[in-house]
Amino acid sequence: MTQFPYLQKANRSFVDREVTKVGDIIHEWNASNIRGVGLLGAPLSKSSISHSGACFAPGTIRKALSGFSTYAIEDGIDLAEWDIQDLGDITMHVTDITESQNRVYKTVASLLKENPTWLPIILGGDNSITYPTVKGFSKAKGNVGVIQFDAHHDVRNLMDGGPSNGTQFRSLLETETIEGKNLIQVGIRNFSNSKPYHDYVNKKDVTIYTMKDVRNKKMVDIMKESIHTLKPRVESIYISVDMDVVDQSQAPGCSAIGPGGMDAVDLFEAITYLGEQPMVEGLEIVEVDPTVDFRDMTSRVAAHVILHFLKGKQKGGLSFD
Amino acid sequence: MTQFPYLQKANRSFVDREVTKVGDIIHEWNASNIRGVGLLGAPLSKSSISHSGACFAPGTIRKALSGFSTYAIEDGIDLAEWDIQDLGDITMHVTDITESQNRVYKTVASLLKENPTWLPIILGGDNSITYPTVKGFSKAKGNVGVIQFDAHHDVRNLMDGGPSNGTQFRSLLETETIEGKNLIQVGIRNFSNSKPYHDYVNKKDVTIYTMKDVRNKKMVDIMKESIHTLKPRVESIYISVDMDVVDQSQAPGCSAIGPGGMDAVDLFEAITYLGEQPMVEGLEIVEVDPTVDFRDMTSRVAAHVILHFLKGKQKGGLSFD
Amino acid sequence: MTQFPYLQKANRSFVDREVTKVGDIIHEWNASNIRGVGLLGAPLSKSSISHSGACFAPGTIRKALSGFSTYAIEDGIDLAEWDIQDLGDITMHVTDITESQNRVYKTVASLLKENPTWLPIILGGDNSITYPTVKGFSKAKGNVGVIQFDAHHDVRNLMDGGPSNGTQFRSLLETETIEGKNLIQVGIRNFSNSKPYHDYVNKKDVTIYTMKDVRNKKMVDIMKESIHTLKPRVESIYISVDMDVVDQSQAPGCSAIGPGGMDAVDLFEAITYLGEQPMVEGLEIVEVDPTVDFRDMTSRVAAHVILHFLKGKQKGGLSFD
Amino acid sequence: MTQFPYLQKANRSFVDREVTKVGDIIHEWNASNIRGVGLLGAPLSKSSISHSGACFAPGTIRKALSGFSTYAIEDGIDLAEWDIQDLGDITMHVTDITESQNRVYKTVASLLKENPTWLPIILGGDNSITYPTVKGFSKAKGNVGVIQFDAHHDVRNLMDGGPSNGTQFRSLLETETIEGKNLIQVGIRNFSNSKPYHDYVNKKDVTIYTMKDVRNKKMVDIMKESIHTLKPRVESIYISVDMDVVDQSQAPGCSAIGPGGMDAVDLFEAITYLGEQPMVEGLEIVEVDPTVDFRDMTSRVAAHVILHFLKGKQKGGLSFD
Amino acid sequence: MTQFPYLQKANRSFVDREVTKVGDIIHEWNASNIRGVGLLGAPLSKSSISHSGACFAPGTIRKALSGFSTYAIEDGIDLAEWDIQDLGDITMHVTDITESQNRVYKTVASLLKENPTWLPIILGGDNSITYPTVKGFSKAKGNVGVIQFDAHHDVRNLMDGGPSNGTQFRSLLETETIEGKNLIQVGIRNFSNSKPYHDYVNKKDVTIYTMKDVRNKKMVDIMKESIHTLKPRVESIYISVDMDVVDQSQAPGCSAIGPGGMDAVDLFEAITYLGEQPMVEGLEIVEVDPTVDFRDMTSRVAAHVILHFLKGKQKGGLSFD
Amino acid sequence: MTQFPYLQKANRSFVDREVTKVGDIIHEWNASNIRGVGLLGAPLSKSSISHSGACFAPGTIRKALSGFSTYAIEDGIDLAEWDIQDLGDITMHVTDITESQNRVYKTVASLLKENPTWLPIILGGDNSITYPTVKGFSKAKGNVGVIQFDAHHDVRNLMDGGPSNGTQFRSLLETETIEGKNLIQVGIRNFSNSKPYHDYVNKKDVTIYTMKDVRNKKMVDIMKESIHTLKPRVESIYISVDMDVVDQSQAPGCSAIGPGGMDAVDLFEAITYLGEQPMVEGLEIVEVDPTVDFRDMTSRVAAHVILHFLKGKQKGGLSFD
Repeated sequence: MTQFPYLQKANRSFVDREVTKVGDIIHEWNASNIRGVGLLGAPLSKSSISHSGACFAPGTIRKALSGFSTYAIEDGIDLAEWDIQDLGDITMHVTDITESQNRVYKTVASLLKENPTWLPIILGGDNSITYPTVKGFSKAKGNVGVIQFDAHHDVRNLMDGGPSNGTQFRSLLETETIEGKNLIQVGIRNFSNSKPYHDYVNKKDVTIYTMKDVRNKKMVDIMKESIHTLKPRVESIYISVDMDVVDQSQAPGCSAIGPGGMDAVDLFEAITYLGEQPMVEGLEIVEVDPTVDFRDMTSRVAAHVILHFLKGKQKGGLSFD
Repeated sequence: MTQFPYLQKANRSFVDREVTKVGDIIHEWNASNIRGVGLLGAPLSKSSISHSGACFAPGTIRKALSGFSTYAIEDGIDLAEWDIQDLGDITMHVTDITESQNRVYKTVASLLKENPTWLPIILGGDNSITYPTVKGFSKAKGNVGVIQFDAHHDVRNLMDGGPSNGTQFRSLLETETIEGKNLIQVGIRNFSNSKPYHDYVNKKDVTIYTMKDVRNKKMVDIMKESIHTLKPRVESIYISVDMDVVDQSQAPGCSAIGPGGMDAVDLFEAITYLGEQPMVEGLEIVEVDPTVDFRDMTSRVAAHVILHFLKGKQKGGLSFD
Repeated sequence: MTQFPYLQKANRSFVDREVTKVGDIIHEWNASNIRGVGLLGAPLSKSSISHSGACFAPGTIRKALSGFSTYAIEDGIDLAEWDIQDLGDITMHVTDITESQNRVYKTVASLLKENPTWLPIILGGDNSITYPTVKGFSKAKGNVGVIQFDAHHDVRNLMDGGPSNGTQFRSLLETETIEGKNLIQVGIRNFSNSKPYHDYVNKKDVTIYTMKDVRNKKMVDIMKESIHTLKPRVESIYISVDMDVVDQSQAPGCSAIGPGGMDAVDLFEAITYLGEQPMVEGLEIVEVDPTVDFRDMTSRVAAHVILHFLKGKQKGGLSFD
Repeated sequence: MTQFPYLQKANRSFVDREVTKVGDIIHEWNASNIRGVGLLGAPLSKSSISHSGACFAPGTIRKALSGFSTYAIEDGIDLAEWDIQDLGDITMHVTDITESQNRVYKTVASLLKENPTWLPIILGGDNSITYPTVKGFSKAKGNVGVIQFDAHHDVRNLMDGGPSNGTQFRSLLETETIEGKNLIQVGIRNFSNSKPYHDYVNKKDVTIYTMKDVRNKKMVDIMKESIHTLKPRVESIYISVDMDVVDQSQAPGCSAIGPGGMDAVDLFEAITYLGEQPMVEGLEIVEVDPTVDFRDMTSRVAAHVILHFLKGKQKGGLSFD
Repeated sequence: MTQFPYLQKANRSFVDREVTKVGDIIHEWNASNIRGVGLLGAPLSKSSISHSGACFAPGTIRKALSGFSTYAIEDGIDLAEWDIQDLGDITMHVTDITESQNRVYKTVASLLKENPTWLPIILGGDNSITYPTVKGFSKAKGNVGVIQFDAHHDVRNLMDGGPSNGTQFRSLLETETIEGKNLIQVGIRNFSNSKPYHDYVNKKDVTIYTMKDVRNKKMVDIMKESIHTLKPRVESIYISVDMDVVDQSQAPGCSAIGPGGMDAVDLFEAITYLGEQPMVEGLEIVEVDPTVDFRDMTSRVAAHVILHFLKGKQKGGLSFD
Repeated sequence: MTQFPYLQKANRSFVDREVTKVGDIIHEWNASNIRGVGLLGAPLSKSSISHSGACFAPGTIRKALSGFSTYAIEDGIDLAEWDIQDLGDITMHVTDITESQNRVYKTVASLLKENPTWLPIILGGDNSITYPTVKGFSKAKGNVGVIQFDAHHDVRNLMDGGPSNGTQFRSLLETETIEGKNLIQVGIRNFSNSKPYHDYVNKKDVTIYTMKDVRNKKMVDIMKESIHTLKPRVESIYISVDMDVVDQSQAPGCSAIGPGGMDAVDLFEAITYLGEQPMVEGLEIVEVDPTVDFRDMTSRVAAHVILHFLKGKQKGGLSFD
C-alpha cells in the first residue's frame, strides 16, 4: 500500500523499531507442527461456583502479554528470537458445561499427541479446566506431577454441584489421574479451606505449603524441595497457577479474593525456577476474572507469570532450533 | 428487647410510621397455601449466550421493590392492604444447566398445581427460563397466550448452543407448548434480529409489533389489539418482559443493549392495562443484569413494572379477601 | 483443523448459523479497488481542546457495529449481501498534530482519487479531522455541501490554540473549501456557543437549525429543506456527525456533554433520509470518547447511525453489482 | 509577569477570546452590597434520611455552570454583560445538624435584610435546607409562595428522625411560614409517596401536579396556572427544585431515583417561564449527590436550570444598571 | 417444603456439605443471655469530619465474614463449633448525632451489665463511636486499657466541630474514662498528625508506636511490650482498630487513606496475639467506608481481623461450654 | 464579614485550629522573588505515546498535598513554619506539542535565572517534560547530574514519533545536556525495556540499578553510592521521579503499569536521603495519570514523595530566613 503510506491495520499500537514486544513474537498458529511454546485459551467459567467472568481472561492476558517487552534486563535474557504460536481458543458449548470440559480434554490430548514437542501455556478460564487439562497432559506424558499455586485445596465433593472450579483436584485424585504424592499445593490460606478437605488432602499424601510456610521460608527453597519430591516419582511436571494465590491488593481480579496472600514477586521467583527445570513441561493460569479487575492488573500479573516461565525456560536451555 | 430499646435487626433501613413501603407488604412464604401475588426467583444466567449476571437480579429487584411506597398517587390506588408472599428462589445446579431449567419447570408447575390461585411474579434470570416457566404455567392453565416485550424474537435454532436465552420461544413453538397465533411480540427492534428468524415467526403466525409500531401507535391501543387477539383463543395470558425492550439510556443493565428502544413509561402503561385484565395471570421479568447496571436503575424499572402490574390488578378488581 | 474440531481463533464470539452480523459483512481491505462502502479510522484526539480519548472510538465503534445484525426489521431491509471494506486506520504521528491532520487529508484525497466509487464512512477521532476529511472529499468531488449534526458551531479562531476540535468549520470556510451557504448545522444548543461565533456563521450565510427548531419541526422536514437548499448548489454532500448533538443521557461518552440535546431516534431518521439521497456520498462520526462512556453506549449509537445510513443507501438503490 | 509569559494560575482551563463562559461573569463577592444574582452554597447533607453526598453539589454545580457559555442561541439572549456574585458557602457544623440548619436560616435572613435587591440562587445540600431558606426568605419578603419541583411531598412527621430532607414542607406548613394554598408541588410521582402524606397535603390545600398531569398538559400551562394561583395571594415567589423530579436516566445523581420522572427540557421550560415573572425572587436546587452521579450529568442539568432561570430573568427585564 | 425440593430462601449462596462457613456459626441473637462472642453494629458516620459511608460497614463486614471458612489451616484451629450471636445494629437517630452516640454508650453499657460474659465485637461506623463504646466498656469492666491501631492520634479539640471521628481519644482522656498511661497507639503515621496533638498525647503519657517502629521491630514484640505495660495497670483491655492504619493499597476503603501504612499481615499477627490474652475482652473495627472501597477489599481485611482475633481466643483457651 | 459569621469561601474544607495542613503553608506566588521551595505545574501529556491524562496531575497532586499535615512524627520534624510558593502552571499550547515543551524550557530557565534560590518542585505532566526541565535546570546550574526513578530507560529513538514521553533521556544525552556518567537510573524493570536501549545506556555509561538491585540492596546504600558517584562530577543534582517505578498495586494511576515494582516506602527513604543533600536542588514527579487512578492513590504517593523531600531538606538544614 505504498500509495497510502499512512494506512495501517485497525487498532494497531505504536511501533518503535528498536523495541521487540512480546506481541511481535506471538504468531497465529498455521496448523502445522508446533515447535515449542504455544498459547491455548480455555475460556470456560460457567463451571464456577460463584459468578465468574474468567472466560474473558484468555483475551486480556494475551493483550497484557503482547504489550510487555521481550527483554529481562535483570537477567540479561531476551526472548526476542523466540517464536510463540497462538493456537487460539477452545470453543465452549453455550449450555453444556461437561461437554465444554470434555472439549478441553480432547483438544489438549490430541494436540499433545500430534505435537509432542508442544510446550503448552494454557489460559483459563476457571479452575475447573484443570481436571481436563491435566488429564490430557497425563495422557500424553505418562505419570505426571502437579505444582499448584492456590489459596484453596479445591477438593470439594462432586455431589453438591458437579465438576466445578472447586472440585478439580478431587477429580484428579479420585480418578487416579495423578497420585496425591505427586501433587504439591503452595499458598494455601487461612479461613479459605475447610477442615474436612484439609484432612482429605492429608489422607491422600498431598504436600501442602501454607502461606505461613511461604512467609517463613525462601520461595526458591520451597520450589527446590518440591522438585526434589517429584523428580524421582514422575515423568513430567505441570504447573497450575490459580491467580487467587496472590494477595488481593496485587491480584484484585479473582473471584475469591482475600488478604494474607502471596507477593507477586515470590510467585515470579518460583515460576522462574520451575521454568528452568526441563521436567516442567506445561503451565496454566486460571481464575483471572477481568470483569472485576482494576486496569487489567491481574492479567498483567498473569502475563508476568508467563514471561518469567519463558525466561526460566531460556535460562534452562530450551531452544527451538 | 425493651431493655435495649435501640437494638434492631442488622441492616434495617429508616422507618417512618406513616409510610407503607412495598417491603412492608412482602412476607416470606410460610409454605401454606398461597393466596394471590407471590414472588419467585429464578436466578439462572449460565444459559446466556453472552456472559450475564442476571442471576443476581432476583436480589436487586426485590431490594428496589421494597424501597418504593405502595401508593400510586396518580391513580389514587394503594396496595398497602395487600399481602405479597415471597416464595424464595429456585436452587440452581452449579454445572448442569438443563437440570436448572428443569427445576424451574417442576417448581412452577407443582406450585401452581398445589396453589391454583397463586398469581406468579417470576424474577429471572435470563430469558432461557421462559421456556420452563411458560411450560409450567401452561400445564396448570391449559391453552396459554404470551405477550412478550422484547427487542428480539428469541427463536434461535438449538443446534448452535442448546437451550439458551435466545431459543426459548423456538422451544415453546416447536414443542407446541404455545401456538404461534397465541404469541405477541412487542418492541422488536432494527439490527437486533436476523431475517431468517423474522421469517420463522411470520411463518408461525406470531404477531409482531416493532419499535416503529410502538412509536407510531398508542401503547394502550396495541395492548387492546393484543388482548382482543388472544381473548377468544386462550384460557390464560402470561406476560414476559425482557428488560432489553427498554432503551439503553433507561435500562442500561441488560446484556444486549442498544438505542432505539421503548420508553419505560410506555411499558408501564402497557403493563397497567394488562394487569387490569383478569385473563392475565402471570408476569415474569428477565435479562436484568445488575453487574453491568448503573445504580440499579434497571432493577428500579423492573420494580415499577411489577408495581404497575399490581396497580392494574387492583384496578381490575383482584382482591385477597 | 479437522483433527482439532474445537479450536477456533482467539476471542471469537458465538456463531448462530442463521444470523448475519454486521461483522460478517465487513472484511479487511485487500488494497484492490474499493467498490462501495469502506470504513476508515482516523484515531486523532490530541487536537482536542479538552482531554479526549476519541482516538479509541474507531475501535469501539467497529466492535459495536460488528455485534448488531444486518437486518432492519421495521423496513424489511437486509444488508446481508453487502460487502463492506475495512480500510484500517490512518497512522497518527505521536507528537506532530498538524502532521497527523495532514495525513488524514492526504489519505482521504488519495483513496478517493484512486477509488472514485468508494463511499467513505470515517470514524474519528475528534472533530478536528473534519477539516482534512472535507478538504480531501472536496478535492475529489468538487463543490461540496456539508450537513453537520453538532451542538456547537465549531468556528473558533485559530490564534488561541491552532487547528483544534473547535476550529474545523472556521478553517473550511476561511480556506473556501466550502461556502457558508453550503454548510447546514443541525442541533445547535443553548449555552454551548458564543454570540460572536453565532454572528460569524450568520455572516457566512450558514444555515442553522437549533435544538428548538429540532423540537418544533419534524426531523424529516428539516432534512428535506436541507437537501433542497444544497441540491442546486453542490456536486456532492458529506455528513458530519459530532455525537455530542445527542442528549447526554443517550450519548454520555462525549467530551462536551449537556442536557437539552437531540433524541437518538431523530438522528437515525435524519440519517436514514440522507442515506437515501444519491448526492450524499460520505459520512463521518466524531467526538465519541469511549474512555468516559458507559458500556460503550455512545459507540452503539454511532453504530446505529452507520446502520441507518446504510439502510438509507440500500433503500436509495445503492448496489454493488 | 511579562517575564514569564507562559505562567498562569494553577488548574486554569483553555481561554478563547471570543467566548464568554459563565465562569467569566461570576465573581467572588467582595462583601459590599449585592446587586442582583448571587450564588450561595448550603453544603448540608448529614440531615438526609439515606446516606447522601449532596454536600458536594455546590462545588460540582459551580464547576458545571462555569463551563457553559452565556449565550442562549435559541432565544438570542446573552448573559455576558451580567455580574453574578458568588457569596461562598455557609459553614456547616460537623456534628450539630440543627445548628447547621439554623446557620442557613440566619445567613439567608441577614443577607436579604442587608441586601434587599439580592436575587438568591441557593445551591444545596439536601432538601432539609428548604425549611431554613424559605423561613429566611419569608422573613425578608413577607407572604411567600413556593413552587416546588419534586417527586415527593416531603411532609414527613418529625418524630421519626427530626428535621430531615423529608420533613421540610411539613415544618413550613406547621410553623405557618407558608400557607398550604401558597405551595404548589409539581412532578409528584407514583410509588414515591404515602397515602397519609398525600391526605395531609390535600387537607392543607396544597396544589399538586403529578407526573401524569405533567405528561398530559403543557408545562407552560401548568406554570401559568401556578402563577395565576399564587399572584393574588403572595408578595414573592420562591422556586425549590429537588433534582429527583427529573427522570433517573437524565438525573442519575440523586439519592432517591426512579423511573417515570420529568424530562429535563420540560423543567427548563418551566423555569424559563418562572424566571420571566418579576414576583419570582429566589431559586434553590437541592438533592444533587455528585458521589453517585455519572460524569456530573446531574450537576449539568442543575447548571442549565440556573441558566434558564437567568435567561428568563433577562427576558423578563431584570437589569443591573 | 418437600413438595418443592428446589425452593430455598431468597439470595442464599451455594452450600457445600463439607464446608463450615463463618456465616454458619453466626446466629441472630434471641435476646436470651449471651455467652461468648457477639457482633454488634454501630452504623454511625454522620459524625465524620469528611463525608463517610462507614455506616454501611456493619453490613459489608458481616457479608465478608460470612463467606470465609472457619478453619485456620496454618494453625490447625477450627471455629466450627463456636456459636456467635449477632445482636444486630444500634438504631441511629437521623438528625441528632450526639443522641446517636449516646445510644451507643447506653446499649453497650446495658448489654454488658446484663451479659457480663459477652465478648463484644463492635462493627463501626466511624471512629467517633469509640468514645461511647469505651465508656460503656469501662462502666462494666472498671479500669480499662485500650490498644488503638490507627494512623492518627484522634485527640482533636472539640470546639471546632463537636464530638467527631477525630476527637474520641481526647474525650476519653479528658473525661478520665481512661488514663493516658493506659492508652497505646500503634501505627501512627507521618504527615497525618499535627505537632500540637503529638505534644498532647505525650503530655498525657500515651504510648506511641509510629510506623517507623512498626517497620523496625517485630509486631509480636510490640504487642508483648504493650500487654506488659497494661497488665499491671488495668482490669480489662479493649482493642480499637481504625482500618486506616493499614496501607492504602491494602485497605483502600477508608476516608483518610495514604501510603506508608501497616501491612495487613502484621495487623493479623498483632490481633492474634492480643486475642490469646484473656485480659483482652473487646474488639472494635471502625472507619471502613464501603462506598469508596474496591470489591469490599477493606471489609475483607476487617473480617480477617475478626477471624484472627477469634483464632487467638480459641488458642487462648476461650470456650463456650 | 462579621455580619455573616457563617459565610466562607466556596469549597473550603474543615479547619482545626491545632492542625497545620500543607495547604496552609502553600501560597500563590505574588511574582516577587522566590525564596526556597516553589511548586510549578507542567500539565503536558499530549506528548505521551499512549493516551495519558497526566495533564491533570498538577491539580490532583496539589490537592493531595494540601490535605496532609506538615508534621513528620517519626522524625520529629515539622514543616509548619515554611512558606511554599505555588508558581502556578505553564500554559500549554492546544495543538503544538514542541511549542509546549519549549515553554517548559523557557519558563524553568527564566524562573531560575531571575530566582537563583528557587528550589523547584515540578509537577508533570508526562515524562517528556524532563528534557526541557533538565535543560532549563542545567542552563542555570551548570553541569548537572540526574537521579531518575523509573521502570524504563526512556531513551527511545526520535524518528518513530518525535520528542515523546519515551525519548527524553535520549535527547538529554544526545544534546549533551547531561553526560551519561551523570545519569543514574533506579528501578529499571524486567520486560519493560528493550535490549537495544539497554545497550545504548550502557554505551553511554549510564548507571543502572534494576529492581533486582533494589530488592537485594538497602535503598539508602544505593542512594549513598549514587551521590558518591555524582558528587565529584557535577555542580547540582536533579531528581526525576516517574511514578511508574512504584509497583502497580501501590501506584495504579500510571500509563504503563506492571507488577514487580518498587515499594513506596523504599522510594520515600531514597527521597528523604536525597533531600538531605544540599547538592540536590530540584525534584520533579511525572507520569501520574489521575484519570486511571483509584481514589487519587497515586497522587497521594506523589504528595508523600514531595513531603519526604521537604523533610529531608529541613533535616539537611535548608532554611528560609
